[in-house]
Amino acid sequence: MRIFLNLVVFFVFCGKLNADGGYLSFGPEFKSTIGEIWPKPYQQVESNKYYAVNSSNFQFIAVNENCALLQSAFTRYANIIAAAAKGYNRAPATAILGIIQQICVNLTQPCEDLPHLDMDESYYVRGDGVVRANSVWGILRGLETFSQLLVPMPNGLLLTRSTEIYDQPRFKYRGLMLDSARHFVSKAKILQLIEGMAYNKLNVFHWHMTDDSAFPYSSSVFPELSAKGAYRPELTYSKADVKEVVKFARARGIRVVPEFDTPAHTASWAASHPELLTKCEGEFQGQLGPLNPTKESTFNFLHKFFSEIKFLFPDKFLHLGVDEVDSACWESNADIQAYLMAHGLDNGDLPYLYLERFSANISAMGWKQMVWQEAMIENSYMDWPVGTIAQIWFDYKNAAATLTKKRQDVVRSDGWYLYVLDTGADWEKFYNVEPTNFNGNKSQKSHVIGGEACLWSEWINEHNVLPTTFPRVSALAERLWSPLEQLDAEKARLRLEEHNCRMIGRGIEARPANGFGMC
Amino acid sequence: MRIFLNLVVFFVFCGKLNADGGYLSFGPEFKSTIGEIWPKPYQQVESNKYYAVNSSNFQFIAVNENCALLQSAFTRYANIIAAAAKGYNRAPATAILGIIQQICVNLTQPCEDLPHLDMDESYYVRGDGVVRANSVWGILRGLETFSQLLVPMPNGLLLTRSTEIYDQPRFKYRGLMLDSARHFVSKAKILQLIEGMAYNKLNVFHWHMTDDSAFPYSSSVFPELSAKGAYRPELTYSKADVKEVVKFARARGIRVVPEFDTPAHTASWAASHPELLTKCEGEFQGQLGPLNPTKESTFNFLHKFFSEIKFLFPDKFLHLGVDEVDSACWESNADIQAYLMAHGLDNGDLPYLYLERFSANISAMGWKQMVWQEAMIENSYMDWPVGTIAQIWFDYKNAAATLTKKRQDVVRSDGWYLYVLDTGADWEKFYNVEPTNFNGNKSQKSHVIGGEACLWSEWINEHNVLPTTFPRVSALAERLWSPLEQLDAEKARLRLEEHNCRMIGRGIEARPANGFGMC
Repeated sequence: MRIFLNLVVFFVFCGKLNADGGYLSFGPEFKSTIGEIWPKPYQQVESNKYYAVNSSNFQFIAVNENCALLQSAFTRYANIIAAAAKGYNRAPATAILGIIQQICVNLTQPCEDLPHLDMDESYYVRGDGVVRANSVWGILRGLETFSQLLVPMPNGLLLTRSTEIYDQPRFKYRGLMLDSARHFVSKAKILQLIEGMAYNKLNVFHWHMTDDSAFPYSSSVFPELSAKGAYRPELTYSKADVKEVVKFARARGIRVVPEFDTPAHTASWAASHPELLTKCEGEFQGQLGPLNPTKESTFNFLHKFFSEIKFLFPDKFLHLGVDEVDSACWESNADIQAYLMAHGLDNGDLPYLYLERFSANISAMGWKQMVWQEAMIENSYMDWPVGTIAQIWFDYKNAAATLTKKRQDVVRSDGWYLYVLDTGADWEKFYNVEPTNFNGNKSQKSHVIGGEACLWSEWINEHNVLPTTFPRVSALAERLWSPLEQLDAEKARLRLEEHNCRMIGRGIEARPANGFGMC
Repeated sequence: MRIFLNLVVFFVFCGKLNADGGYLSFGPEFKSTIGEIWPKPYQQVESNKYYAVNSSNFQFIAVNENCALLQSAFTRYANIIAAAAKGYNRAPATAILGIIQQICVNLTQPCEDLPHLDMDESYYVRGDGVVRANSVWGILRGLETFSQLLVPMPNGLLLTRSTEIYDQPRFKYRGLMLDSARHFVSKAKILQLIEGMAYNKLNVFHWHMTDDSAFPYSSSVFPELSAKGAYRPELTYSKADVKEVVKFARARGIRVVPEFDTPAHTASWAASHPELLTKCEGEFQGQLGPLNPTKESTFNFLHKFFSEIKFLFPDKFLHLGVDEVDSACWESNADIQAYLMAHGLDNGDLPYLYLERFSANISAMGWKQMVWQEAMIENSYMDWPVGTIAQIWFDYKNAAATLTKKRQDVVRSDGWYLYVLDTGADWEKFYNVEPTNFNGNKSQKSHVIGGEACLWSEWINEHNVLPTTFPRVSALAERLWSPLEQLDAEKARLRLEEHNCRMIGRGIEARPANGFGMC
């Protein structure tokens, strides 16, 4: 608590007093840990045996299964470790038992091709040079952990203790969503986001690609969508861009789940295809509402479009969107009313007209589905395919209780909106959000499969996306990975200070975590 | 008000409704102005005559006085205009009266060497190619204005209207302070800060170089100050770095006012020179307090140190600091008590012991002085040299009333702390802060010479310093430059949208101003 009070003092005054009410000494406000892991592992057995790695003279050895994914990770982590040798954190020049020249990487099962919702991310690491896992994804997590153990000493070697780490995530879905429609974010920055996700063991990049404001995806089958619907022709993602992002993420064990939000949030589709949207009449005369669910042509268009998308994004899941659908425009349209009449339907059937058919089409194309909470809560008669995931962005306690009672899997985003800003060390707010914090029994809680930070981009662009994300997203990354009983923001503070320095040392454009200091 | 309500709606929901409560159309939330000036000029006479500039075929002609400063500005603005031709804002393909090939720059008085507090920044601009001013500083402001009039048309030319602008600043001190001690900010980012300041007609870069936490200035006479007092040896500014910053700022008509805060906020000095600081006794035993004002050696050291600084920073002003001086440590020290006794003094004399002598020394070196408000308010018997400026960072109304009653010049920073963050378009908060808003007569108000944004760097580092600054600092830049009666945030919004796009187009890493859109 002393430290926290200190922060409050610093906010009001400039920094006259230290935590004890006395005079400050020089140096950083918080002394970071040395060689601690973020997020905190499931189990770590300490040791007082110290070894060292010479960053220019060691190698990763695949002692069992091997594949290109593994080899590329070896190259990546060799570079990270080489760069770390020049980094900020200086370990003491402790006596060492020896210099490790080989990191033995023991992958016990053949490599899988793509990261997936149920991938096995567990691993074992021994600090003197062993990484073992059942899946290549576990190896990736283990390599990240191993690299975090290494801290440069004054003599140019990297110190490691021979600690043993048995680790696995608490939740299988640990995501970051980027809205690339409200502001365009360049591919280069997206790759940095994904790189930073890997350093936090996050595993889903949810790409909210389009929205009312803009359609930045450059389609082959409908090039006019972005030609007319993007803010500008150069503010678009080509198919090659998307492939590069997907490949980059896969190499890091990160899924890419695309979202082309429908049936609302589609104004930008109308820049080239106004016929897809509903013409409002009455109060909203002259405006365009959600996609028109009474026209065959709507579904034909969607089928063609999503066939292209299916080819580009190999993940098993598509996020359908389905947030904030307002029926008023549908209900105002005379043709739609005539259609309802002709089919013996009423206004209450309108959302289902869209959702049942669209969801069935998406299923038929081989996709599993993810939706915003309204898709299930406002459309409670909808029979979503087994395994459909609801993402909850408001009213978490009620929504989670309601949906998990129906055995729907849920992902929490409420409380994890990164565009919400506050002065100071506001990562603590994100750290203290808990996905199982609602009234429900054990079975219900088992349907909470994780959480996701959301980068809605009203106030986020190219230039602040990275410091807005890091290190604040690290807070929820730990919440989603580490055992609940280990989660205490005060205990995490000095580790986050180290982790933030580590991320910055690796080129992630992170803002300060805690107050004045080196990073 | 409609627009503001819209923002509130967007904060809570994702963006279903537009400002009229209807459905959104595609495209940016706010349509920016075209060819408007930021900050808004004193007087602008509109015209409906349109001309164009071919960015690769025009030149600035000095039709009167000339100098290297002017020539370097021509080169800089030629590049800015060439780059603008590829920028975001597209003017309509209006019929034009002709293509301007020469911009006549009429400097009526010889160039001054250095920007200064009382420099004449007034200028006249005619949109069809005339920039006139009494001083080279006015020409710099005029060139900035002229460049802002130019907006690319689809045909590759830059449109300009032949508007007439008579402009001058409301306040002569328009600053930005960077604390480079709590976090180090690289020279490259400092140059970008200064570049961005020029685009906002700010004119003082106040460099709060050192503080308790770190001493990043690499001195020749006392190299140990940074060798031991910087966070790390590479997180320092060399004399060459400082010279480059000063030169870069001068070319843009921006003063650089250094601050090496004393007698408090000096813990980092003690990393190499603990003898300068007071050894606390009693309650704070073992800690070090402010510089010791009873030792000759303290003042000898300061004299040597500031002699070096005087040589590096050509501005007439030095900021002495003098904020948050706590006397408790001084009062606890037995040697200091003995000194007071021997000289017939008491504890109340302690601050004056330091301030009178230090200020006299600084005056003798040829400097004018600037101080934080406490220097005057807490030490009301101190006879500061005529023209000493007080910078007010809290309790503005009372402090401004008190100090201006004593005919002290004041600069407002209260309300302009850029590290204070909020979600959304928080530039409005900064925009609505008014330096003359306190109880005082006309004569008192005349002692308000301007304002300054403060980048205290507890939570600002290399990676977020620019998007934290821009465009939020633009809000106070307009407040400090433009006539009071023109200042209405709602009227400014669309101009700021344009200005932010313009800054981003010029390479300033600014965050979004207002909501979703291209910039």
